[in-house]
Formats: sequence, structure tokens, C-alpha cells
Amino acid sequence: MAAPTAIKTDIDLSTAGELAQQLRVDSVRSSTSAGSGHPTSSMSAADLLAVLLARHLHYDWDNPSNPDNDHLIFSKGHASPLLYSVFKAAGVVSDEELMTAYRRFGSRLEGHPTPELPWVDVATGSLGQGLPDAVGVALAGKYLEEAPYRVWVLCGDSEMTEGSIWEALDKASYYKLSNLIAMIDVNRLGQRGPTELSWDLDTYSKRISAFGARVIAIDGHNLAEVDRAMREAREDGHDRPTVILARTRKGHGFSEVEDKENWHGKPLPREMAERAVIELGGERHLTVRGPRPEASSGLPRAAADGAHVKLPTYSVGEKIATRKAYGQALAALGVRRDVVAMDGEVSNSTYAEQFAHEYPERYFEMYIAEQQLIAAAVGFSVRGFRPFASTFAAFLTRAYDFIRMAPISRANIRLCGSHAGVEIGADGPSQMALEDLAMLRAVHGSTVLYPSDATSAAALVAAMADLEGVSYIRTTRGAYPVLYDSDEQFPVGGAKVLRSNPGDQVTLIGAGVTLYECLAAADELQRDGISARVIDLYSIKPIDADTLTAAAAATGGRIVVAEDHHPEGGLGSAVVDALTGAGRAELSVRHLAVRNMPGSGTGSELLDAAGISASHIATAARELTR
Amino acid sequence: MAAPTAIKTDIDLSTAGELAQQLRVDSVRSSTSAGSGHPTSSMSAADLLAVLLARHLHYDWDNPSNPDNDHLIFSKGHASPLLYSVFKAAGVVSDEELMTAYRRFGSRLEGHPTPELPWVDVATGSLGQGLPDAVGVALAGKYLEEAPYRVWVLCGDSEMTEGSIWEALDKASYYKLSNLIAMIDVNRLGQRGPTELSWDLDTYSKRISAFGARVIAIDGHNLAEVDRAMREAREDGHDRPTVILARTRKGHGFSEVEDKENWHGKPLPREMAERAVIELGGERHLTVRGPRPEASSGLPRAAADGAHVKLPTYSVGEKIATRKAYGQALAALGVRRDVVAMDGEVSNSTYAEQFAHEYPERYFEMYIAEQQLIAAAVGFSVRGFRPFASTFAAFLTRAYDFIRMAPISRANIRLCGSHAGVEIGADGPSQMALEDLAMLRAVHGSTVLYPSDATSAAALVAAMADLEGVSYIRTTRGAYPVLYDSDEQFPVGGAKVLRSNPGDQVTLIGAGVTLYECLAAADELQRDGISARVIDLYSIKPIDADTLTAAAAATGGRIVVAEDHHPEGGLGSAVVDALTGAGRAELSVRHLAVRNMPGSGTGSELLDAAGISASHIATAARELTR
Repeated sequence: MAAPTAIKTDIDLSTAGELAQQLRVDSVRSSTSAGSGHPTSSMSAADLLAVLLARHLHYDWDNPSNPDNDHLIFSKGHASPLLYSVFKAAGVVSDEELMTAYRRFGSRLEGHPTPELPWVDVATGSLGQGLPDAVGVALAGKYLEEAPYRVWVLCGDSEMTEGSIWEALDKASYYKLSNLIAMIDVNRLGQRGPTELSWDLDTYSKRISAFGARVIAIDGHNLAEVDRAMREAREDGHDRPTVILARTRKGHGFSEVEDKENWHGKPLPREMAERAVIELGGERHLTVRGPRPEASSGLPRAAADGAHVKLPTYSVGEKIATRKAYGQALAALGVRRDVVAMDGEVSNSTYAEQFAHEYPERYFEMYIAEQQLIAAAVGFSVRGFRPFASTFAAFLTRAYDFIRMAPISRANIRLCGSHAGVEIGADGPSQMALEDLAMLRAVHGSTVLYPSDATSAAALVAAMADLEGVSYIRTTRGAYPVLYDSDEQFPVGGAKVLRSNPGDQVTLIGAGVTLYECLAAADELQRDGISARVIDLYSIKPIDADTLTAAAAATGGRIVVAEDHHPEGGLGSAVVDALTGAGRAELSVRHLAVRNMPGSGTGSELLDAAGISASHIATAARELTR
Repeated sequence: MAAPTAIKTDIDLSTAGELAQQLRVDSVRSSTSAGSGHPTSSMSAADLLAVLLARHLHYDWDNPSNPDNDHLIFSKGHASPLLYSVFKAAGVVSDEELMTAYRRFGSRLEGHPTPELPWVDVATGSLGQGLPDAVGVALAGKYLEEAPYRVWVLCGDSEMTEGSIWEALDKASYYKLSNLIAMIDVNRLGQRGPTELSWDLDTYSKRISAFGARVIAIDGHNLAEVDRAMREAREDGHDRPTVILARTRKGHGFSEVEDKENWHGKPLPREMAERAVIELGGERHLTVRGPRPEASSGLPRAAADGAHVKLPTYSVGEKIATRKAYGQALAALGVRRDVVAMDGEVSNSTYAEQFAHEYPERYFEMYIAEQQLIAAAVGFSVRGFRPFASTFAAFLTRAYDFIRMAPISRANIRLCGSHAGVEIGADGPSQMALEDLAMLRAVHGSTVLYPSDATSAAALVAAMADLEGVSYIRTTRGAYPVLYDSDEQFPVGGAKVLRSNPGDQVTLIGAGVTLYECLAAADELQRDGISARVIDLYSIKPIDADTLTAAAAATGGRIVVAEDHHPEGGLGSAVVDALTGAGRAELSVRHLAVRNMPGSGTGSELLDAAGISASHIATAARELTR
């Protein structure tokens, strides 16, 4: 959109004050028109945003994809009326859209911001995520792009009790993210009453300083203080993130609600809204833009560079763990300058260390902070990179809220979870991923991969680099024989039929370690004269329904599925969902999964105790074919 | 077990030093014998544990269920060799068991501690959970039991980067948990190299102090300093938790590994172990016990008291939200003194506030810290209480690692997730739980309930109070008509057939809001001359396979399932899993679920856009019966 002629730039503080009132008025008007929303949470931060928009945010409003643009993330996503009012003030959203579309069906002005809007980087609304996401964006800017942009984040005070905020501040200071500026809107009131720390700015300040950020405490309604803090935050010559700690009043500017309880998340009734607009000085329609982006370093940004990826190759029969193949394939992908890796302090177990060793400049150690691990990946995705984040699959559960939000953020992130299932053995159930397939399958638009051997693992890691959305690869601790030649293809959404004969009586389906158990069971059954088809279901989502239905049809609907996972939501569910989703199905299914509480032991002891070893598979098949 | 005669009590520090060496020797011996484990992570904390066991832990080793016993939680669960060596030193685990059972199949001495051992409160091994769990135990001790016990927690330095640790410290100071004492074993080395803060005790100290705890920094290998710190920590007259910040050396006591990298999680090879035992002064077999528990306040502990619970009743047709029924039923349960409630700062949305209002002394506000919310519930469960923890269902994803670990901890906790699905409307996808059923079903031994109306919701909340394991109830934002009389029974694992005729051609299955859509679809189909059976699947796990298979048989296998959830792992999966798990199945299933990315809108607009409204259900049924 070309800038309209009435745009004001080079704004003085008095005009910024007018702008702040406009933002409040529009926050009230838009939420009242929608019949829902959070006007009071918007009003407390209006002065911060007015000064930011007018004087400090370096943004090319005509080109939201200008790589040098500052970033603005509302970690307190419920203040969407304020954010959208800022967009109106910048001249990119019309007053009409604000008043007729906010929170309505089909609108891009959703209840909480999402990247349906080109000026929004990430979806927020689950508190405590915007700041961690911003750490990822700032890491990209400082270390990979050497870009001039700053990342401005508006946080609520209620979300300061989320551990993820402290993971973010810790990493922001560890990585010296001087380009990260968080503004905490300390309006004292949460959803149901006062916050834990109320207006105790001193405690906030001590905590934030101890976590390594520079704190500037201000009166968030004093425009000169806001302006000075932002100027100071923008100054170079320091190596820490900055936190502007702003004491504010919820609903500021309208005496009937200001600093009063029971006004969270409630639009003002129409007549009250009219009184608010009057008290706030009436409607305004200023269009205001601040400074343009600073000149770029000119460094090339995230791009695959058409680099040729030479994947590792393995010999059939060679024993190698899929987790090791993950690391080797990831390292091979490193020739692509858009590939970035990070890990939760277990890179010597996930084998992400192979990438770290070869491309230390594109590897980010996130230590044991899985929420920040995923958020960093989301942040890198915002800047067009292709992040791979790894940890033990069990510990990805720590970050499920972040994983769930990633597709709402339209992020493209790649996850690797190692040490799947009871197969890990002696470490016991705390380290065994037994819910990860269910968790990842349920994520919108996700891809879930579970290779059995090193060849397929390497091929799937390479495929992940170009997948959209959230993709996940589950790897195994132990070393198992390579099954496939290195030129075998593994399309996402495919499956491999490893054993197949015209007279097959039963289909055995496995993935990962259970595929080997299925193969051994097929051998055992063969000796009994029972011919079994064996399927390697390396792609769990999307799933190869054609191969499954063909196998079911060929074997009289007799199917045994074995998985190193709890019975719900994993491989067995995926198979049954696919078979019953494909039309009328006649099925006799035996679903072998981890139904007991495992303890310690060797991998094979535990596979057997869980009832998912070859002998159990063979027994189930015999019962079906009896 | 009666105390053997050779037990030493009233131990001096020199004997404690001998004990520390014994703990090191036994940590080396046990892990070497097992061929896996974490000896070096045990050796760094051996002095802390020796002094604690000998002089400060008030514990009745003959009766681990003595309600006045101190609690000892290894948040760094991988130091299990040390913990089990402590149990040997206390005379409750034999040297033989330690040497032959550790990490072996079927043993209670698992790779990471679980309550299979009577002296272990909670399972650990996913770092950053032990301290939050301990906060729950300490809350119970201070506020509900007024018990003399202290809760001692051994934390690793690597886990200090987990946000959950800071949620725990924040709540520990907010609730003035002077009975909580955390010992941080700052041994500088994590799994793959130095920790983020190395031996920067000053930064740790600043952070912990800022979060409100009293910090005592010591040399963790100086027994006198350790002893003084623990004595000071035990002193009354303060109202803060204490953190003993102990500078230690990983592998301390054996020069070949001490403070060296690449020795994490590795047992010493046998010959090296022999050299270690020699350097550590040889094997010892001291049996040592410290002080007995202090006298109890005599307050009655968690007990249902046989109180009569009078549930709220509703009139058929009355419109009321299930989330409101949750709050009212929970408040009714409050007559039971063992029922405790907590919420993540949204009690006015989940309606947990109804309990908070009536029983403020048994309600704990956890603010926006979902990990600590669940951990507190686990801690209350340790002490025999029956905790109910609530927040928006979407935000329970934040705590999935804690929920996953709860059954390993043998905890009995009750979760309520409100605001399920797209039904919530204008707030948009960040607030919509669309993965929660998949997530909760996959938890070992879980119960998953999803009532449609207020009567069933209230009955199920009451049933949850007496369930074992992790139970979950999903509630809905909007108000819908009451369907059932107040004397209707809702057994867990049951289902209700709301429409049934001999000539039924198709079965419609819903739960929560989609049940109303199924009923409307049945009306619509009836007008077309199609008779539909309608099932209220209020219990998703366990599931009423008999009712489902009977319905499938009666309606030619034609089934439409509609759910306000993503397609994977929820209601539809549960139905198909049950039907295919019950023997040979002939099925024609249409599974309606939220397959698109929702935005904002009204609930009914979004149900329709997701394809789960009555008209879509009727269309699917027509197609099946065509």
C-alpha cells in the first residue's frame, strides 16, 4: 500500500500523546463493536506503543517483508485491540476494518494476533510465548543476518510468572541479545484480580537484572520517560537485552474502569464506551509513521543457495542408530546456509553435535530449556531459516504448548526426538517417550516420521528441510541393521512393503524398533507356514492409506500393529484411522503397544515385557489366522 | 524393618565424612555393576547427602509412612546411585540389592527414582520437576497439615535453566515455604560440557535471592559448612524457603574423573572402578540414621471424613455451561477435607473460584504457571490429598511433561480443562484446546471425561474425587441445555444412548458440544426418514466398547463421530480403537473433526466452518445410508 499523503513522521511527544489517546479510543471502539476483547489491557500500554510507533520502531510500513524492519511482538496477545489500533495508526488497517472485522468470522483481525496479518511475526495468546519467540528472532538478527533490526516485545505482568519468560531472559543475556527490547506493562491487575507482584517494580527489577538484562524502570504513562527509555534501549555499545519496566494503570484514561478489578477481557457496554471516548478526547484518525529501517549490513539472508546436499550412506546390514543417522544427515544439510540447529543440552545423545561441530556458527545450544528450544526454532522460522531442534523425545512434552502454537504462527520448524520408547532400557520410564506420537500427530498440519534404519532416517531428515509446518522425526537409541540401499526413496506419506507374497494371510505393521520385531515375527511365522506381509510405516502422518488398504484387502483384513508407544494416538491409531477413513472396512486388528508401566531393564527385556516383541507379534498373528 | 543393632545415630562430622566416602564408593560400585548410571553426578553431592542423612533429615526409617517424616526429593533423579546408596546407609536397602538389582529388569532400584520405593515421593528424571513437586508437598505441610516435616530437595545445576525451577522458587517464596530447603549441587558440568553458568555462584545467588529465597552459599565438600548451612536452614523464625548453593566438583574423590568432561552418565569401567574404590578409601558398610521426626501438631491429615457430598442439581432444559457445573460440583466436594483445588489464574473462567470462595484455606492460586500448577497437585497427592487443578484446556499443554510424569510418580491428580475446541469462538485458536484429548488419552492409566451437560459434569466431577491416577475432565465455554435428570448415573467407562430405535440405520456419536449437534442432526435425519442412534460418549477413556459395538452391529457398522478436536487421538480415534479392538469389525465410519485452521467468529460459525455442526453430521449420515 502506498503511504497516504497525510502521514505524519518525525513526531513530537505532544502528538504522540494524541496518538496514545487515539489508540485507547480505538481499543475501546473496536472491542465494543466486536462485543468481546480486552480494552483495559490495551489502554495500559497505549502510551508505550504510541511513542514506539511514532519515534522508535524502524519499520517500512509499505513493505512488511523488508528484511531490515524492526520486529514488534505482542507477547500479551490479548491486547490485540491495541495492536490493531497501532496498525490503523500506521495506515495499514482501515478504521472500517477495525470496526467491522475485529474478532469476526473470516477476519484477519483475530481475537489474538496471528501472522494472517503481514505485520505479525508469530501467534500469541498463550502467555509467556512471545518473548521466547522473540529471542529466536533476535538470535537470527544478531548472529545469522547481522541485521540492524531490533525486536520489540510487549509483555504483560501476569505472564512474568511463566517459567518460559525466565528461560527467555536467561538465553537473551547468555547470547548477549542487545537487539532485544522487552517492555513489561505492569498494570497490576490480572484476569481475576491483582497479580502476584502487583506494582512491586523493585522485585521485578531485581529478578530481571539477575537474569542479565538491563532494566529501565519508568512511569509507563509519562511520555518523556517512555521516550528516553526507548532511546536508551536503542543505543549501541552494550551487550545485554533491555527490559523497560513500565508502571501503568489498567484501563488508563477512562476513570470508570481505570485500575479497577473485574474489567479484564470485557468490552465496555456501548454507552459506557461512548463516555470513554468522550473522556479520552474523542475519536481521532491520525496516521503516524516513525523512522525507516536502518541500512542493512547487506549480508545475504536465509537461502538454500542451491547447495548440493550429500547425504551419508550406509551399507545394508551395518548396525547404526537412527539417532546417529539424524546427526550425520543434519551435518550434511549444513551446506545449506538456511539450515540452523539447536538442542537442549543433549546433543551428544541426539547427535546434533555432528552439526554443531561442523557449523558452530549456525548451532545454538539452548541448554535444558525445552520451551525456549522450540520458541527459538519458531523465531528462526520467522526470519526464513529452516531450524532443526532436538532433544529426547520424552522431553518435547515439556514444550507442547509451544509446538501447538507453532502452526498458528505459520512457523516451519523441524523437531527431532531421540530415545523413543521402552527400547532405551535401563534409564527407566522418565526418559521413555511413550506419548510423543500422539502429541505430534494431534498438531495441526504436522508431519510425523519414524524411520527404522539409518538410510531411511537420513533420507527423511533431508526431506524435512523442505517441509512446511511442524515436522517431527522420532529416533531410536540402539543400533539396528541398515535395511535399505542408499538409493532407496522415502517419500513423505509413503510406506515400504518389506515382505509380500500373493498368499499373505496377515499384515504386520511396525515402525522404528518394532519393524525389526515384525520382521523376526514374519520369519517365525514362515516356519509355521504362515505367510505375513510386513510394512515399514516410516511416515505416520501423512500416512500411506493406499498401501495399508491394499495390504488389508490382501490379507483378509487381518492386521497386527506393534508400536513402542502407549496405545493411544500412535502408530496403531494412525493405521486404524487410515483404514476406517478409506471407506467400508472389514478388519481384524491386534494392536500391540506399551500398556503396562515400564521400569528398567535391557531394551529387549522391556520390549518383551511390553508385549511388542517378535514373539508377541507372532502369537497375535497366529491367533488372527487360526 | 526393625533397626539393626549396629545403626549409628548422633553422628559427628568425621563419621559423616566416612559416610560420604561410602556413598561415593557405593555410587561407583552400583553403577559399574549395572553397566550404566551416573556415578560422577552422585559423587559431587555425596557430602551434602552424608551430612543430611546423619544429622539433619528427621526420618523414621522403620516407618516411611510416618506423617511427620521429612521428605527427600532428588530433583536430579539421575543421581539415583547416590540416593540408593543413602538408602543402603540408612539400612533399608541391602548392599546385595544395590549391587545386583540397580537398573535391572523388574527391580525397584530403577534408573531414575520412582515411588516403587517407599522412601521416594515422586518420580524424577525429567529435570526441573522435583523442586516444583516439592513445593506441593511443602504447601501441604505448611497449610493443610501444619506438620513439622521439612522438604529437602537435591537439584542439579543443569536444571536451573528450566523455567519450571523459577516457577517453583517464585511460588515457594510467595507462599512463604520456610519448610522447603533446596540444595543445588553446582558441579559445573552438564551432560555435554560446562553448564551455562559454570561456577558462577554469584549469579545463581542473585537470581535465587531475587526470587525470594534465602541463599546460603557454601563449599559443598566442606562438611562443616554443609552442616552449618543445614542447621541454619532448619532454624525457625523466618518465612522464606532456603537454597543451599553448594559449589562442588563432579566426580569428587576420584582424581581420574574429578571435574573432567565426558564423564556424565557413564559408569566407570571395572578396573577404573576398582582404582576409584581404593582412592576413596575402600568399601565401607556403615549404617547411619539421623534424628527422628519432630512431634506432630496432631492435626488430622488428609481424609474424606465420610462427609456427605450434596451435588448441585439442574433442571432438564435449563441452559448451563459444564464449566460452571465443574465449579459448583467442586465446591460441593469441599465438605471433604481431603479435597484441594488450585488454578492457573483463570478461576473466574474455569469456575474453580466457587471452591476458592467457600474453602479459601484449601484453595491455592498458582497464577499463570501451569507447570507448577500440575506439580503442586502431584505434591498434594504425595500427602494423600485429592487435588483438582484447573485452567483452560489449551494451556494444560504447557504442563504435558508434568502430566506424563504423574503416573510414574503414582500420583492421583484431577485435571479440569475448560474452553474446549472451536466452540469458544471469538478468542481464536490460541485459546482453543484441540489437542487435549489426544494428549490426555496417551497418558498411562489416565481417565478422560467429556460431559455435555451440567448434570453429567457434576456427577463426573464427584466421581473423579475417588479415581486413581491422572483423571481429566474437559469442559465447554458456552451454556447448553441440561439433558439429564439429576438422579441419572454416569459411571466412568459408560456411555448414554440418547436415541435408539430397532430400525436405526446409523449411529451418531458426540461428546460435549457435538452431542447437541448430533441430536439436532438426528432430528433433521428423522424428517428425512432416517433413524439415527445417538450416543453421548462422556467417558472417552475408559470407553464403553460394549455400547459402541452394539450400536455398530445394530446400524450396519455405519457410524458418524463428530468432535471439537483435531482429528488425531481424540473422540474419533477412541471410538475406532474400541470398535477394532473388540474383534472383527465391519465399519463405515465418517469422522468429523477440526481439520482446518480456525480463526475467530461465533461458536456456531466455527463449528459449522470446521464441519462438525448438525448439518455436516446429517450429510455424513445420509451419505452412509444412501
